[in-house]
Amino acid sequence: MMRAVQDFYPDDFAHCYGCGRLNRDGLHVQTLWRGEETVARFTPRAEHVALPGFVYGGLIASLVDCHGVGTAAAAVERAAGREIGAAPAPRYVTASLHVDFLKPTPHGPELELVARATEIAGRKVTVQVEVWATGLVTARGTVVAVALPESMRLARPDSER
Amino acid sequence: MMRAVQDFYPDDFAHCYGCGRLNRDGLHVQTLWRGEETVARFTPRAEHVALPGFVYGGLIASLVDCHGVGTAAAAVERAAGREIGAAPAPRYVTASLHVDFLKPTPHGPELELVARATEIAGRKVTVQVEVWATGLVTARGTVVAVALPESMRLARPDSER
Repeated sequence: MMRAVQDFYPDDFAHCYGCGRLNRDGLHVQTLWRGEETVARFTPRAEHVALPGFVYGGLIASLVDCHGVGTAAAAVERAAGREIGAAPAPRYVTASLHVDFLKPTPHGPELELVARATEIAGRKVTVQVEVWATGLVTARGTVVAVALPESMRLARPDSER
Repeated sequence: MMRAVQDFYPDDFAHCYGCGRLNRDGLHVQTLWRGEETVARFTPRAEHVALPGFVYGGLIASLVDCHGVGTAAAAVERAAGREIGAAPAPRYVTASLHVDFLKPTPHGPELELVARATEIAGRKVTVQVEVWATGLVTARGTVVAVALPESMRLARPDSER
């Protein structure tokens, strides 16, 4: 059975617009292992265009972001000898996000994101992500993810308490 | 009267999810001059969270992207002696997007994006963007925008013809 890392985020941290299973209006990106790399698939909605016929770059950045962070969590767990589902997944957040848009991404087909964690250094994980559409890489991204800081566990704004 | 550059994109190029005035379900980012810099304001929707209380990074990346591209168009026009609204705005697309998330961005308050075009080199414009929330810069971005390539004007996927 294929298990997505996002299915094992603790409930308190499962509301992300991009990948949280508890965000009713979100994108629900799911990160799965495939051998030594991770994959996520997403079919853009009708409104997710940049120009007619092409996928919106901000959506691509969002998919790269969430699949990158999910890959960071999966890679740290595997490095510790745990597969997805063996325990609650650790929650990473994005320190930096870089996307190179290599060519226009056609709107319509399902996109496949393929990622690898290329460095785990203390609380910081670097992940490289490719975005595939109709058999071509249309974008490449790099996500630097860090383990959820205490300030985001505790210091919610007043409006959310 | 303050005019947004996105209001002057030609109709064929005004469907962007992030900033197109003709995208009914989109975010409708609007880029305005304020002296030598540009500003855009956006209040995240309820669902635009990363964790409860904090804005989703992919949304921040999307706002940086669209305000960056809009700033590129505005800056190229101003360099040619035209203010927003004097002519249809030229349409730029994103070649690369980089965002550093400096601190968590609180969810609730209106965000302000402030940008400057730092280089215009042929078809390529580099734009620096700051994201402000409650008086603090919470993220910084760099957008490299390029004039819309012919391939995106003409080579729409079959499904969209």
